[in-house]
Amino acid sequence: MKKIAVVLSGNGVYDGSEIHEAVLSLYAIQKAGAEYSIFAPDIPQHHVVNHLTGEEMKEKRNVLVESARIARGKISPLSKFNADDFDALLLPGGFGAAKNLSTFAFDGADCDIHEEVANSINGMIERNKPIGALCISPVILAKLVGKQIELTIGSDKGTAEAVTAMGASHQQTDHGEIVVDKKYKVVTTPCYMLDASIAQIGTGAENVVNKLVELI
Amino acid sequence: MKKIAVVLSGNGVYDGSEIHEAVLSLYAIQKAGAEYSIFAPDIPQHHVVNHLTGEEMKEKRNVLVESARIARGKISPLSKFNADDFDALLLPGGFGAAKNLSTFAFDGADCDIHEEVANSINGMIERNKPIGALCISPVILAKLVGKQIELTIGSDKGTAEAVTAMGASHQQTDHGEIVVDKKYKVVTTPCYMLDASIAQIGTGAENVVNKLVELI
Repeated sequence: MKKIAVVLSGNGVYDGSEIHEAVLSLYAIQKAGAEYSIFAPDIPQHHVVNHLTGEEMKEKRNVLVESARIARGKISPLSKFNADDFDALLLPGGFGAAKNLSTFAFDGADCDIHEEVANSINGMIERNKPIGALCISPVILAKLVGKQIELTIGSDKGTAEAVTAMGASHQQTDHGEIVVDKKYKVVTTPCYMLDASIAQIGTGAENVVNKLVELI
Repeated sequence: MKKIAVVLSGNGVYDGSEIHEAVLSLYAIQKAGAEYSIFAPDIPQHHVVNHLTGEEMKEKRNVLVESARIARGKISPLSKFNADDFDALLLPGGFGAAKNLSTFAFDGADCDIHEEVANSINGMIERNKPIGALCISPVILAKLVGKQIELTIGSDKGTAEAVTAMGASHQQTDHGEIVVDKKYKVVTTPCYMLDASIAQIGTGAENVVNKLVELI
């Protein structure tokens, strides 16, 4: 059975993984006849946001521990990830990708990528194994690969400019559409980077996952 | 468009709403051509569980605030729920239903149901509007209705006995199967009360939602 590693960044759109994107990715993986293993870095969240008010809370939470809620406890620290063990890697979106997995939310094109995230993705790219990324997560691939890699973050002008500044080639997309970089085997879709419905998120996740499975 | 209220109980299987069940319910509602509004009681969680270790954490979290993560901020306090405004009500599962919405996890058949939860459900039943419940949530309907209401919590012997002790008529079910009580228009399915895969959760949620939409 084809094995896909899913890398989470917390549990909630404003400070972690976008929950609909994460769950519908796992769902799409099983429906495609593949299996998933979930990973997250064992690091503090950048911050904790009250999702009712949008305000920052005076709390500390851990990315791995909060991601474990989406994973129902079946999750491993990203430090244990080995690219030899997987056929593909998938990054759902949410601000966690831009605040915990990278510093894109604060530094834009000058962002840093967390070392374990960079190692995991670089390990897959070196082996020419496919990678999928939803929503804001493609910025991580733009930073790590550059070199005119073709990807999409939807249609947000500022983000598209940042992605271009990092050396990627941005393609504008609408709901559920995917962009495939054939050289790097990277598949991206905008999801909640657009004003989307949960049904559209399901379509985007399914399209990315089905393409990943095809590329394996 | 048919309107379905979804009542959450937090964000994570061990102390709140089961996330896959919650998300796949929302997804099923949109795919069925209906729309959802999300509610949760504005109360403290019974406790906070570290989903990586299973241990209790020395933290306080609020059911409405944590549920807002699944709802992406679009959520209302359950005190604002009005049965006149909705065509159906849906309760996803997770221990939150048995720890926050009721005391079933601690008191079994002698459990109390949170007043706002009871008011919401009783309001729907008085109007003969359909109610769906996944996983452990049917225990709430067993307690509130009793009267040989037909429902399922899967095949767990202890829970089935408690449900029977509360006056319900329990029917054993397998993955994705639903039980429909025609008198009370109550639709139930076991989901993660069985050792299920996320694809099976999707099937269960879809079957319940499609039957709710049919009953409206």
